[in-house]
Amino acid sequence: MSPITLAKANAIIEAAFAKAKEADLKPLSVVVLDAGGHVIAFQKQDGSSMLRFEIASGKAYGALAVGMGSRKLELLAKERPHFMEGLSGVSGGKVVPVPGGVLVRSGGQIIGAVGITGDTSDNDELAAIAGIVAAGFEADGG
Amino acid sequence: MSPITLAKANAIIEAAFAKAKEADLKPLSVVVLDAGGHVIAFQKQDGSSMLRFEIASGKAYGALAVGMGSRKLELLAKERPHFMEGLSGVSGGKVVPVPGGVLVRSGGQIIGAVGITGDTSDNDELAAIAGIVAAGFEADGG
Amino acid sequence: MSPITLAKANAIIEAAFAKAKEADLKPLSVVVLDAGGHVIAFQKQDGSSMLRFEIASGKAYGALAVGMGSRKLELLAKERPHFMEGLSGVSGGKVVPVPGGVLVRSGGQIIGAVGITGDTSDNDELAAIAGIVAAGFEADGG
Amino acid sequence: MSPITLAKANAIIEAAFAKAKEADLKPLSVVVLDAGGHVIAFQKQDGSSMLRFEIASGKAYGALAVGMGSRKLELLAKERPHFMEGLSGVSGGKVVPVPGGVLVRSGGQIIGAVGITGDTSDNDELAAIAGIVAAGFEADGG
Repeated sequence: MSPITLAKANAIIEAAFAKAKEADLKPLSVVVLDAGGHVIAFQKQDGSSMLRFEIASGKAYGALAVGMGSRKLELLAKERPHFMEGLSGVSGGKVVPVPGGVLVRSGGQIIGAVGITGDTSDNDELAAIAGIVAAGFEADGG
Repeated sequence: MSPITLAKANAIIEAAFAKAKEADLKPLSVVVLDAGGHVIAFQKQDGSSMLRFEIASGKAYGALAVGMGSRKLELLAKERPHFMEGLSGVSGGKVVPVPGGVLVRSGGQIIGAVGITGDTSDNDELAAIAGIVAAGFEADGG
Repeated sequence: MSPITLAKANAIIEAAFAKAKEADLKPLSVVVLDAGGHVIAFQKQDGSSMLRFEIASGKAYGALAVGMGSRKLELLAKERPHFMEGLSGVSGGKVVPVPGGVLVRSGGQIIGAVGITGDTSDNDELAAIAGIVAAGFEADGG
Repeated sequence: MSPITLAKANAIIEAAFAKAKEADLKPLSVVVLDAGGHVIAFQKQDGSSMLRFEIASGKAYGALAVGMGSRKLELLAKERPHFMEGLSGVSGGKVVPVPGGVLVRSGGQIIGAVGITGDTSDNDELAAIAGIVAAGFEADGG
């Protein structure tokens, strides 16, 4: 599998911002992680609040942690809160289980994840999917 | 935007204590954080319990983290406890999501936050708002 | 033993700032901890850098940790770096072993500590001693 | 003081990459932090190793922590390793004290920091300075 290049990561972020503008969303923060959960690129729009890098990363990291979009993680958190507590613990507190963390797939394989925060979780997820698809990958929100 | 000076931070604390005296509140602890979540000033009144610095800071830090007063954070914590758990994790355990963490705005812009603990959360918040307003800023409790 | 009241803690900080002004020091940050290592009061002068609360607290906390001013902690750190590494570990990374952390004694008993940072470590310590003495306590720099 | 906008942060990163290309440097990772140490933007060039976000951030965070470029932090680390260990502890392990963390100033005031890693520390610093200056700010490497 080919990793996500920096050019592709930047394309994802740009397309997510374009979607946000079109849908008149609040300022967004977008992170792109590689398959190992490490940051390739991040951008935070003006007017965002303080901890947006950490929240965006927590959504994307959580998606990679269990191989499902963070929308499914939220369901899991509601049904089995003790599992989520354990996952939070073993990850070193790196998981934010709400929609907006979307897996990036290529030919079905997971090659990374995008995490977005700033508007409602549903809108964050929409922007993430738009960004991933615009860059030519498959988006898996959960 | 101008940062909160030490003189202004001290003025906020003094005015919060004055409000507490007038309303006959229990001993309060008051912290003033800058827009990046770093401490400018803190005072703990005699008779307060041990971890009041950490609790006051947790309210103010939480408000800054997501750009809303900690009263809204408490609602969020009730509706989506898994989100709050995630936020706690990615912040390194720095968030206390109950009322009493109030954003300090100047011309609408966030320039810091005040966190108060010691009495009921509602009274803590009242004292925070009184302190911020007395110092000439806008208070945003959530 | 009587604890350090908030009024006394504020008096220590004021006197330390007065000493700093007289000696033309850089902007200082001053913390006063109680005998249990918990914050009573803190003030950071305008123009200070970001992590000054943590550094000031680390000096004072270290002094309390081993019952000697942080000047002695620095000697210890030079002679037995493995001890300081262990102390850092068991304290949860709360110790900064350089001068400027001074024990506050009353009748010989430790009742708290003052930590100062902003100028040279030697000047930080001078200001801490001046503040403690002005408030009527005994200063023990190490 | 005005904060660093996202447009300016992206301009810094672009100019740093341009400098790296001109000087034929290895793949770089560039982070731009605001004055409170929070991430505005980050990009990692293809072929970089795993923990480059953390290293770049650690250089920039260290510079902000004490208000001096990370080149001075390295000197400090050599002269007083126990101080650096303490700073690492109280910062929660967020400081990497080697050149490549450069303060961004505007009218003399600190408004953020840039951290770069990937080539030698000296070259990382050169690229950071080039990026900051190209974006119209003052660079303070230490």
